[in-house]
Amino acid sequence: MERLPEIDGARLLRSLDELAQVGAIEGGGVCRLALSDADRAGRDWTVARMRALDMAVSIDAIGNITGIYAGSDSGTDSGTNGRTGATPAPVMTGSHIDTVRTGGRYDGNYGVLAGLEVVAALRQAGVRTRRPLAVTVFTNEEGARFQPDMMGSLVYVGGLPLAEALATRGIDGATVGEELARIGYQGTAAVGAPRVDSFVELHIEQGPVLEQQGLRLGVVEGVQGISWNEYTIEGVSNHAGTTPMALRRDAGHAAARVATFVHDLALRYGGRQIGTVGAMQFAPNLINVIPHRAVFTVDLRNTDNAALRAAEEEVQAFVAQCCEEAGLAWSRRALARFAPVAFDCALVDEVARHAQALGLPAMRLPSGAGHDAQMLARACPAAMIFVPSVGGLSHNVREFTRPEDLVDGARVLMRVLLARADRPLGAP
Amino acid sequence: MERLPEIDGARLLRSLDELAQVGAIEGGGVCRLALSDADRAGRDWTVARMRALDMAVSIDAIGNITGIYAGSDSGTDSGTNGRTGATPAPVMTGSHIDTVRTGGRYDGNYGVLAGLEVVAALRQAGVRTRRPLAVTVFTNEEGARFQPDMMGSLVYVGGLPLAEALATRGIDGATVGEELARIGYQGTAAVGAPRVDSFVELHIEQGPVLEQQGLRLGVVEGVQGISWNEYTIEGVSNHAGTTPMALRRDAGHAAARVATFVHDLALRYGGRQIGTVGAMQFAPNLINVIPHRAVFTVDLRNTDNAALRAAEEEVQAFVAQCCEEAGLAWSRRALARFAPVAFDCALVDEVARHAQALGLPAMRLPSGAGHDAQMLARACPAAMIFVPSVGGLSHNVREFTRPEDLVDGARVLMRVLLARADRPLGAP
Repeated sequence: MERLPEIDGARLLRSLDELAQVGAIEGGGVCRLALSDADRAGRDWTVARMRALDMAVSIDAIGNITGIYAGSDSGTDSGTNGRTGATPAPVMTGSHIDTVRTGGRYDGNYGVLAGLEVVAALRQAGVRTRRPLAVTVFTNEEGARFQPDMMGSLVYVGGLPLAEALATRGIDGATVGEELARIGYQGTAAVGAPRVDSFVELHIEQGPVLEQQGLRLGVVEGVQGISWNEYTIEGVSNHAGTTPMALRRDAGHAAARVATFVHDLALRYGGRQIGTVGAMQFAPNLINVIPHRAVFTVDLRNTDNAALRAAEEEVQAFVAQCCEEAGLAWSRRALARFAPVAFDCALVDEVARHAQALGLPAMRLPSGAGHDAQMLARACPAAMIFVPSVGGLSHNVREFTRPEDLVDGARVLMRVLLARADRPLGAP
Repeated sequence: MERLPEIDGARLLRSLDELAQVGAIEGGGVCRLALSDADRAGRDWTVARMRALDMAVSIDAIGNITGIYAGSDSGTDSGTNGRTGATPAPVMTGSHIDTVRTGGRYDGNYGVLAGLEVVAALRQAGVRTRRPLAVTVFTNEEGARFQPDMMGSLVYVGGLPLAEALATRGIDGATVGEELARIGYQGTAAVGAPRVDSFVELHIEQGPVLEQQGLRLGVVEGVQGISWNEYTIEGVSNHAGTTPMALRRDAGHAAARVATFVHDLALRYGGRQIGTVGAMQFAPNLINVIPHRAVFTVDLRNTDNAALRAAEEEVQAFVAQCCEEAGLAWSRRALARFAPVAFDCALVDEVARHAQALGLPAMRLPSGAGHDAQMLARACPAAMIFVPSVGGLSHNVREFTRPEDLVDGARVLMRVLLARADRPLGAP
């Protein structure tokens, strides 16, 4: 190493500001739905930046963009591809730059731009690691336009067939494949190439825990399991003034009982269990008519898959019981189910060690939200780093992380990437 | 009397069919919003029918239509207007012909057309009662386009200033006064003239009680008190996956607690207490976002005003308690409050006597819905007669009452009107 590389905080913050101009919306937020014109503009900006850093850019068939900062070694790396003389598998970081409709400027973008800042710092210092460093922008992490979310990383690790992903139709009727072609990002690189040595994603917390605890950094141990279900309860609409309580078949009342049950269940389970009824719709939704239908969602999360399964079963049993008692019909539509993901212990420890070395008060915690890192964890050792979100706000134009936290997060990321990428080839 | 008058059931049913063609909608229902073109057409049809029965038709300044079937006496009636030699005050029946957007063909219409059938039967039999008989169509009973409901009868008895009613702006922006003028029903008769001897309204039950009890007729003792409030609870939106239960300010959960409280309160109070949360709206209403706002309605009804007041206070105190516990803000918007109305005992007994004389199994019950009769009760002895609603359905295109019940209800109405209108002048 010619000289010790260091993060240029001002450059990092400037890059966040610049990318936030692409698809900027009122209130300081960003609207860059996956594969929209704004997403294309954001991708173009990002690719230009990678090229300016002399990174080798490739785009795969699902539109994931990978920039490679070459390593110093091109020897054998039996641990990953086993081929003698081949370039060793890169250590990868990255995230996404698509946003929800009223998104903030940090979610996803921060992980990509911090990765590029690490490369910029290394390049400026003339530093090459043994293994290549890769910074990847994954397609459609948010799922706001095309379901499922985390699509690009899921396809990358083989969890969703490419053809199926390309045929996915979005909320506006267009398919992923059509839109990738339209914006010029249906690449030719094979999906899942390069194989990855390890993956570290830096992200805003999107929750209030670090701020509430007065901490600077989150060492993410894994991702909570997520269970999303939509329940529909069907009763009978009748006049609210003329129908005695005993003769009612009130779908709204049953839905309210379930909503309080979900909340109480989460408190009763304790630990990492959380439960939310975020969406609720009555029909006909009139003051003087007993609701004949209530549709609501139940979002359950836990790091313990057995507990999560038990919670799901309890909620469904309670819905069935409420409906049985009140003469109602019910149905359930499974919207998403992800088992909990545990990140690689050694990599998690590595993150904790560097936080400590930098004097950043940190805690270990699970991620409550889904991230591309949980998909990469299927293919290689993976971990995540969180920085605090002010007020816990995210998916919100008021999403904010303090500049010093953004910079310190990138400093930790750089150290973890350096340590991983400079391991002797063949090391575990 | 030349011969005993009797209801012509076929003619009554035919008239219901004919009026139901005006504003007919799919499923056999009717959409005749107050002061719409369809309402005008329905009014025109009704006025024509009154004129065909040689009734004297007058329209007052709020658009109430009254047809008078002259009585045989024009002597002193000190009980009502006290003027010697003046025409005695009429015995009035009637209801409304406006409907909700997806209304049935019986609600309101039945009371008007049964009144006209009584007149037709008397006229055919050559019968004149001592007092005149009046059949009135009250403007905007439903309140589906212009608030408040029961507007025409409320203005009629002086409960709402005429100018205020005329200035009322509807859901489509037009005022009552503009629309009355547009459809040609802003009449010249003074509001509240004629003064009324007594008022009897025949109506479908709009609830399931008579059918469930296997009865043919309802002797309505009064109208439940009605309390309508809209509550807004404000919390903080946060990511449902990253916000621990203890750090949430979940407006949706508090709203669900209140909804179950309202239901349980009604069961706990028992008797005539009912409670409904019919409308519920979460914001932003997304599966993975903790609701920052919940807006919902609470409909409480009781025949006992003190109990109703206590219920209102309990609900508000519970809202306050839930919000206090969870760090939420709340506000309440009073939408409507009607004290319970007790109908005239003698007139209620009269209804019961004729039901019994005709061998119709009947019960005494309160009305759960609001009706024009409760407004008229402020000005004169008033009562109501209910016929069963199949399945309790109303405000629904599937609203239905069996033909034999419709005919028997009109038979009771005729007998009550005859008994009232043939009382010696000056009798109580």
